[in-house]
Amino acid sequence: MYQELTKFSAATLHEALGKTGNLPSAIKPIAPGMKVCGRAYTVQTIPGDNKIIHHAYAQAQPGDVLVVSCSGYYEAGYWGDLMSLGAKTRGINGLVIDACVRDADDIEAMGFPVFSRGLCIRGTSSLEGGTLNEPIVIGEVVVHPGDIVVGDRDGVVIIPKDRIEEVIEKATAREAREEWVREQLRQGKTSIEIYGW
Amino acid sequence: MYQELTKFSAATLHEALGKTGNLPSAIKPIAPGMKVCGRAYTVQTIPGDNKIIHHAYAQAQPGDVLVVSCSGYYEAGYWGDLMSLGAKTRGINGLVIDACVRDADDIEAMGFPVFSRGLCIRGTSSLEGGTLNEPIVIGEVVVHPGDIVVGDRDGVVIIPKDRIEEVIEKATAREAREEWVREQLRQGKTSIEIYGW
Amino acid sequence: MYQELTKFSAATLHEALGKTGNLPSAIKPIAPGMKVCGRAYTVQTIPGDNKIIHHAYAQAQPGDVLVVSCSGYYEAGYWGDLMSLGAKTRGINGLVIDACVRDADDIEAMGFPVFSRGLCIRGTSSLEGGTLNEPIVIGEVVVHPGDIVVGDRDGVVIIPKDRIEEVIEKATAREAREEWVREQLRQGKTSIEIYGW
Amino acid sequence: MYQELTKFSAATLHEALGKTGNLPSAIKPIAPGMKVCGRAYTVQTIPGDNKIIHHAYAQAQPGDVLVVSCSGYYEAGYWGDLMSLGAKTRGINGLVIDACVRDADDIEAMGFPVFSRGLCIRGTSSLEGGTLNEPIVIGEVVVHPGDIVVGDRDGVVIIPKDRIEEVIEKATAREAREEWVREQLRQGKTSIEIYGW
Amino acid sequence: MYQELTKFSAATLHEALGKTGNLPSAIKPIAPGMKVCGRAYTVQTIPGDNKIIHHAYAQAQPGDVLVVSCSGYYEAGYWGDLMSLGAKTRGINGLVIDACVRDADDIEAMGFPVFSRGLCIRGTSSLEGGTLNEPIVIGEVVVHPGDIVVGDRDGVVIIPKDRIEEVIEKATAREAREEWVREQLRQGKTSIEIYGW
Amino acid sequence: MYQELTKFSAATLHEALGKTGNLPSAIKPIAPGMKVCGRAYTVQTIPGDNKIIHHAYAQAQPGDVLVVSCSGYYEAGYWGDLMSLGAKTRGINGLVIDACVRDADDIEAMGFPVFSRGLCIRGTSSLEGGTLNEPIVIGEVVVHPGDIVVGDRDGVVIIPKDRIEEVIEKATAREAREEWVREQLRQGKTSIEIYGW
Repeated sequence: MYQELTKFSAATLHEALGKTGNLPSAIKPIAPGMKVCGRAYTVQTIPGDNKIIHHAYAQAQPGDVLVVSCSGYYEAGYWGDLMSLGAKTRGINGLVIDACVRDADDIEAMGFPVFSRGLCIRGTSSLEGGTLNEPIVIGEVVVHPGDIVVGDRDGVVIIPKDRIEEVIEKATAREAREEWVREQLRQGKTSIEIYGW
Repeated sequence: MYQELTKFSAATLHEALGKTGNLPSAIKPIAPGMKVCGRAYTVQTIPGDNKIIHHAYAQAQPGDVLVVSCSGYYEAGYWGDLMSLGAKTRGINGLVIDACVRDADDIEAMGFPVFSRGLCIRGTSSLEGGTLNEPIVIGEVVVHPGDIVVGDRDGVVIIPKDRIEEVIEKATAREAREEWVREQLRQGKTSIEIYGW
Repeated sequence: MYQELTKFSAATLHEALGKTGNLPSAIKPIAPGMKVCGRAYTVQTIPGDNKIIHHAYAQAQPGDVLVVSCSGYYEAGYWGDLMSLGAKTRGINGLVIDACVRDADDIEAMGFPVFSRGLCIRGTSSLEGGTLNEPIVIGEVVVHPGDIVVGDRDGVVIIPKDRIEEVIEKATAREAREEWVREQLRQGKTSIEIYGW
Repeated sequence: MYQELTKFSAATLHEALGKTGNLPSAIKPIAPGMKVCGRAYTVQTIPGDNKIIHHAYAQAQPGDVLVVSCSGYYEAGYWGDLMSLGAKTRGINGLVIDACVRDADDIEAMGFPVFSRGLCIRGTSSLEGGTLNEPIVIGEVVVHPGDIVVGDRDGVVIIPKDRIEEVIEKATAREAREEWVREQLRQGKTSIEIYGW
Repeated sequence: MYQELTKFSAATLHEALGKTGNLPSAIKPIAPGMKVCGRAYTVQTIPGDNKIIHHAYAQAQPGDVLVVSCSGYYEAGYWGDLMSLGAKTRGINGLVIDACVRDADDIEAMGFPVFSRGLCIRGTSSLEGGTLNEPIVIGEVVVHPGDIVVGDRDGVVIIPKDRIEEVIEKATAREAREEWVREQLRQGKTSIEIYGW
Repeated sequence: MYQELTKFSAATLHEALGKTGNLPSAIKPIAPGMKVCGRAYTVQTIPGDNKIIHHAYAQAQPGDVLVVSCSGYYEAGYWGDLMSLGAKTRGINGLVIDACVRDADDIEAMGFPVFSRGLCIRGTSSLEGGTLNEPIVIGEVVVHPGDIVVGDRDGVVIIPKDRIEEVIEKATAREAREEWVREQLRQGKTSIEIYGW
């Protein structure tokens, strides 16, 4: 049912959530046109290490989106073309990571959606540590396993799993209202007049 | 007459102004190829609120460019597709904002030029506050109502309204000089030789 | 011989170097698809001044890549279309600069590869000062004259001139290994299984 | 019972929590020697507005510590001498705020503990908005109403209210262990030897 | 007459100005207890150079405060003990600089008030360039020659020279009002009750 | 012989080095009055881990100063009271770290000089990795084992081990010159007059 969320933009869903759920704006698609939607499979790495992310895509379910916090250490490429291939092959829907990745050309060619703080060639270590599928914090948002992630060019929003229906309803209403506003605007009215401010 | 400024790049106009007028380099077009030119209609919002910007495009004149300071709070989408539609319908030439916007896909499709610090889905409030068409400060530049704004891929420059003629003259001279330098360079001379350093 | 390095991505070369040589991730190509490879001709400017860079491209050899530190002052356009024309005419392979540049449209049209922290219209001065072809520091990397620079969409790596052969060998081995891993991944194995973690 | 927590440093409590609960290190006491301990009364303001904080100290209980998120807008003085006087009079134990405050001299003289990102004279507005005593996020920590806040020169830690006993126990054990290590160190042993690494 | 301004805190004067005039909060006294008040003698340096500041204190009048913008290049020590001695000897009241200084111990011992972004040992050059006693921009404030500068522990405020009387009046009224509020607070009333919110 | 360097300030030594050797200004003493001088024992940690620093103070010689790069991950307390006790007991002269530390009260009481980017309670891991006594890069400076470190309130400077004599000579000359300038300044001359600019 959450697939219906793909009809809406991340911004609209954020509004439908009462202006919550927005990840930091620095997290953006690595290539034009990339969009993502799926159930969050949450990961927390130790700084500069990506072994736990290998475990993550091995254990996540088809349709999941990996959502990864790297404990505030952004300047490394925690993900690349091999991991994208592995994850895609297993049906993972995409990656949202609060840090950098690398191999952007190959990932884009593969059509695997990745949202990150940017691209960085610095390699990671392969130590042990981190958590899988436990609540994590990114920016001002707590992401729980199973929450729905929606990302587009404007940014990424996290929808709590028990609010999906409510959000779809509110987003639908908002879009209808906006369509009506659009009509008024096209006739030359200002938003001040339309909203009666 | 200021329309003649569109013949020059923002960088050239900045040089013609004696290396002044440059807005912070973080303010960039939200889509490739976007350019803007027009009279500044200045706006100052309270942090995180965009109601005054609705007033702004309702009161600005065709040909104006909204130039908006958000009091240093960047992490919100102060502007979106509806406002773009409203502003465009009323003949506004574009938006330059020292903060973020959202709905980039729709705005790009509409062909409404927007220069911002980036894209952010976080919504704004609709309170009262801010100023309209009074001098504002962005980076190291004081923008007065009626100054001319020129923006391209490289950045945005503000030309004081009483210096337009002077700037066009100097920019024209600079371009002529540069064309000559270009010729010398093509012949293999170095700038050290050309400028006699 | 170093031309063989162009067969590898910057990330692969960084790994072949034992995870060293990576410049700060903020330094990126100014246009999609730009790549660079060549011998480093190193430059250190005084803050906000670019005269020494004019000297640099006049003295560098065909095949060189200018690698420029601006002493930590990023917010200026130290390089533009004229310098690109001059450098390209003299066979310079490209520019990597730890600061901003301008005239991106013209530089892109010219096909001269530039890697920078971004675009900025603020002009520079033409004073005396700085160093030519001496070791410089960018981020965590010491760049020596004659080191090899390789840059692509993911970032820039510096290969010490006396490690070229070793790096090519290790990068080649890494790619072979990765090709084999790719095969395993396509069959649905996870990296955990493949690496025997 | 939570008062026993004051026997431990914030760093020790953070370790006893399994290395969690640490607020961003930018949040520090505004004067040397300030320490704070108490139950969190949580507040979320709209950016640049402090009216809700007035409500907070009016409704909080003696012994509470106000813990305030300002939605990422740091550059304002959300709290000053009058509010400190009002809060202190009503038995509030202190303030931890993810933004700036002002009137540091008066607050220090009053002996009211304040932990902030720094001092800023910029005034706030008095609009409506924000939340009282609901969970908030600061840095990587979710703060629930009633959690225990402990702050000292090193920083601030949040202890979930249902883990107080456990934390005291672990912190006590840690201190005992550290006292023993200290003895070994004084005899000239290295930590490598002591820990058997 | 402007000396009367020293009776008020920078925060109070900022409020009396209608919440304007505040310099960025990163600019702070380099030692506890430092305060400054005087007429602004404005200076703009080229990045990383301090020669113009030598000219400034040679030409400023006793009672002036040097207010210096360094064009956004903060990481240098533009001012030190010798300049402090020279300026103090000539009756200059202090320095407010949007960058760093050095020799803090000696300056503190001398009792010459300096407000800066911090301390930095990096030396400056001695080239030509910059402006003297022309309007400059620091943060969101335009500083005109002759404006009054007031700085204390909380920060720095700029009072336009033609608003001194108005500001003193409003600040006096504000303090009286605050004294009355203080009385109410001591009796246990909350600000919500006092302001009738 | 390098002990003679303690007669000079870090800023003076930086000037004597031809304006080189300065570490980033964010690295400062954690308590007023702390100074440090000694031979650099260099350390590079993996991000967020401090085990290698335990090895470092076990292997360094009396009189050494640990100089530590943490690979760009600042937000952790890599050093505390126990390590200070251990290092001090073994005659280590101090610590300069490009990251944060904790237990500032105890360290200050112990009189062990620590220079860091600040204080942070976040704990570190105890994995394997990093380097000991090899060249490292901090900011724009390459630190070699055995170089001399001098730090005071203004900041930290690194003096290459083969330039000590030269630096002492130049610093001595500089101080003599400055003493003479001081005399001139006290007589009311300006630096413009003194330097004959």
